[in-house]
Amino acid sequence: MHSSASLYAAIDLGSNSFHMLVVREVAGSIQTLTRIKRKVRLAAGLDHENHLSQEAMERGWQCLRLFAERLQDIPPAHIRVVATATLRLAVNADVFLEQAQTILGCPVQVISGEEEARLIYQGVAHTTGGSDKRLVVDIGGASTELVTGNGAQTTALFSLSMGCVTWLERFFTDRHLAQENFAAAEQAARDVIRPVADELRRHGWEACVGASGTVQALQEIMMAQGMDERITLAKLQQLKQRAIQCGRLEELEIEGLTLERALVFPSGLAILIAIFTELEISCMTLAGGALREGLVYGMLHLAVDQDIRTRTLRNVQHRFMVDTQQANRVARLASQFADSVEQPWELDEFSCEMLQNACELHEMGLSVDFKQAPVHAAWLVRNLDLPGFTPAQKKLLATLLLNQTNTIDISSLHQQNAVPPRIAERLCRLLRLAILFSNRRRDDTLPVVDLNADGDTLHLTLPAGWMAAHPLGKELLLQETLWQSYVHWQLDVE
Amino acid sequence: MHSSASLYAAIDLGSNSFHMLVVREVAGSIQTLTRIKRKVRLAAGLDHENHLSQEAMERGWQCLRLFAERLQDIPPAHIRVVATATLRLAVNADVFLEQAQTILGCPVQVISGEEEARLIYQGVAHTTGGSDKRLVVDIGGASTELVTGNGAQTTALFSLSMGCVTWLERFFTDRHLAQENFAAAEQAARDVIRPVADELRRHGWEACVGASGTVQALQEIMMAQGMDERITLAKLQQLKQRAIQCGRLEELEIEGLTLERALVFPSGLAILIAIFTELEISCMTLAGGALREGLVYGMLHLAVDQDIRTRTLRNVQHRFMVDTQQANRVARLASQFADSVEQPWELDEFSCEMLQNACELHEMGLSVDFKQAPVHAAWLVRNLDLPGFTPAQKKLLATLLLNQTNTIDISSLHQQNAVPPRIAERLCRLLRLAILFSNRRRDDTLPVVDLNADGDTLHLTLPAGWMAAHPLGKELLLQETLWQSYVHWQLDVE
Repeated sequence: MHSSASLYAAIDLGSNSFHMLVVREVAGSIQTLTRIKRKVRLAAGLDHENHLSQEAMERGWQCLRLFAERLQDIPPAHIRVVATATLRLAVNADVFLEQAQTILGCPVQVISGEEEARLIYQGVAHTTGGSDKRLVVDIGGASTELVTGNGAQTTALFSLSMGCVTWLERFFTDRHLAQENFAAAEQAARDVIRPVADELRRHGWEACVGASGTVQALQEIMMAQGMDERITLAKLQQLKQRAIQCGRLEELEIEGLTLERALVFPSGLAILIAIFTELEISCMTLAGGALREGLVYGMLHLAVDQDIRTRTLRNVQHRFMVDTQQANRVARLASQFADSVEQPWELDEFSCEMLQNACELHEMGLSVDFKQAPVHAAWLVRNLDLPGFTPAQKKLLATLLLNQTNTIDISSLHQQNAVPPRIAERLCRLLRLAILFSNRRRDDTLPVVDLNADGDTLHLTLPAGWMAAHPLGKELLLQETLWQSYVHWQLDVE
Repeated sequence: MHSSASLYAAIDLGSNSFHMLVVREVAGSIQTLTRIKRKVRLAAGLDHENHLSQEAMERGWQCLRLFAERLQDIPPAHIRVVATATLRLAVNADVFLEQAQTILGCPVQVISGEEEARLIYQGVAHTTGGSDKRLVVDIGGASTELVTGNGAQTTALFSLSMGCVTWLERFFTDRHLAQENFAAAEQAARDVIRPVADELRRHGWEACVGASGTVQALQEIMMAQGMDERITLAKLQQLKQRAIQCGRLEELEIEGLTLERALVFPSGLAILIAIFTELEISCMTLAGGALREGLVYGMLHLAVDQDIRTRTLRNVQHRFMVDTQQANRVARLASQFADSVEQPWELDEFSCEMLQNACELHEMGLSVDFKQAPVHAAWLVRNLDLPGFTPAQKKLLATLLLNQTNTIDISSLHQQNAVPPRIAERLCRLLRLAILFSNRRRDDTLPVVDLNADGDTLHLTLPAGWMAAHPLGKELLLQETLWQSYVHWQLDVE
């Protein structure tokens, strides 16, 4: 057996770039082995009669020759190659496709806009956390997909003829970033969206998720600027103003915006503002995957049968040999503590969920080494691909795990931006106490601890005689009050 | 079932410190959960009639009360508590032991010197790489164990009545670090060793391994000072001169020597010099474990049935889901390349073994994330507890894994001290080429590559037409020649 037998490849011939993703299936999860991206700019080769130029085709074939070499080693049943908007439009697409299939040695499917939307939705559903009643937005080079769905099931699918490459050519031809360019681009986009807005709104959503480069770029900008990661209309308008101040496309400079994403950023931004406005979206987060992930998960036949974050946590616990009984014990105690202080400490549902997640993973650093286990745990969470968790959520979890014991690095708790700094501090305090009181790894030795919050002072009441009967527990608890006092967290023990 | 069912505890009541080690057995390997150490200084409580003072006993019992709380949660069959030299000597040991057993709720065994030596040997055999025909040296607080063995079997066992605490009290009473103090300490130690030297030498050894704090301290000093990690008599003499220059014990200051180890360092050093001299040891490395590890592995009944490094590699490959077929493929190709250039590039057996090990682990970073996988692999190897690998070997492996592809960080190759910098560069070049040509993950697509070294220039000859038939391979290879050229490694491709 070749070790290539467990490999899968998904190729997408997009209007702006061609992408190849090669993954390996291992222990029920997906490990990425190769990502190759080439900016082929196929859409730029379409003339006004939708005739694809020979030159653009050559660029595409050249790229496919690279992909082809890698594809030879993957079982044919594990390969899917799809082409999207530009090849849907091109009147001479056949010429391109025939040669493309010869080069690749496998069929290329030109998928309909609706099929593209469905695949994108599947890719999101398999990789993105939060509510599963969602609206998915993907702004491509020449088309934009809008999909609502519930769990693994789509409820409305639209593929609209606008994209960041086509909008760049139509509304920013002069390379000016003027108010007027944006206004025209937005207006045209709203006209495209309006006919489908009612049906999307009728199905409704609890979470709105964005895929594609524009949303990725926004995410990077917000992380670089220390903002929280939720995209709102106000933030989009602010960035538009910033772009207008830059004046011209080649002078566009925004902290966190990479050169690679800059060219189609203003046009994508205009489309996104139109979508927010027409659909009255209050807040959007970044998807963990889209079209290519939809292709791969489709071939693997993995069910979206449980919450994606739960699936990720189980998988990580298994891979890093976490003692799940202990993780659950700490999680239960943390949940009990959180209940006691939920009101005065203003802990919302999301914060409590993140605390639970931190409990589930807190011992994973032990799989690297006992020494500095919290540092290892934090490093793993920061760097692992964790489907269902956004970058900001990973950062919050990492800082909680880092501060699970020993001295407290308060600045790291403030550097995350998934929850307010004060909330991160509070979650950290609850996590530490839950770990401390679970340290004997037995349910029957958990003391009945009573926890009360008075402002930021915690009052902890232990059963009479507990301290005397537990010299090690006492030592740990006294040390903990010291550590907390160093960062001005008051912990009173009675 | 409690999650404590898979826990094991080993406690050793030593002459200088009491130690508790709690581990968890998971997937055939050992994960450390807790290490507690308390400097009880029991030996200091022995008077000249070997009567143990009440005060020293109280210090010991106090410490055991902490341990006891943790022990309650571990199955009694998974606990071993042993006491060594001071409690072998103390005429009133019974008084201490009776109370100790009441506190701990489990038996305490005072083990013979020979049994201590046997356990130390087992701990070393389960955790230390290199030849398995070995001499093991462990300098304790009040006794020193010298053992020869072959694989899991000991061939000669000696426990000598000298230790770094007793030698401190006898020869450095005035706290002076004078030539005369060292000379007297060494002479006395040689007198103790001489009677057993012949038998140890008769059994012989291929590798000499040191356990205990003195050797640990030496290792830390050498790492901090950028020396290679092998301990030689010349280095010991140098450090003795340095100590003598400091004049007094409280003024002892050596780069890399921690405060915690300083007090008994000179006395331990004198004993070690005597051992090197009497047994004519040329070189010693640090053991991965000793007495406590011997106790734990003894309870787990793990066989020492294969090379410890091989066992570690298999375990790590499994835990981090490495594609072992691919790892073997790269290892075979690297071995073939190494054979072609072994002579001109002066690659010895150890270097070739390290290259093979790097091949076995090179993809482990993928288990963290595809992005920066080499960084992740290097970080894991640096931080994982890898039984059989010394710190310097881990550092070499980490730097090879870091530089397995993309741009080359030549300074990191020079910062390790397991092999000369030039050899590290050469191993890196061979590893990179082996990975590059195995990238299709199939044995039948490995090209017949001919490799020749002319000084530091590598000539690589490929089958005619290979480049034309492999556009991706060609692109990778051309990129590789560029990357190598940036660090002035010449790679000629024909």
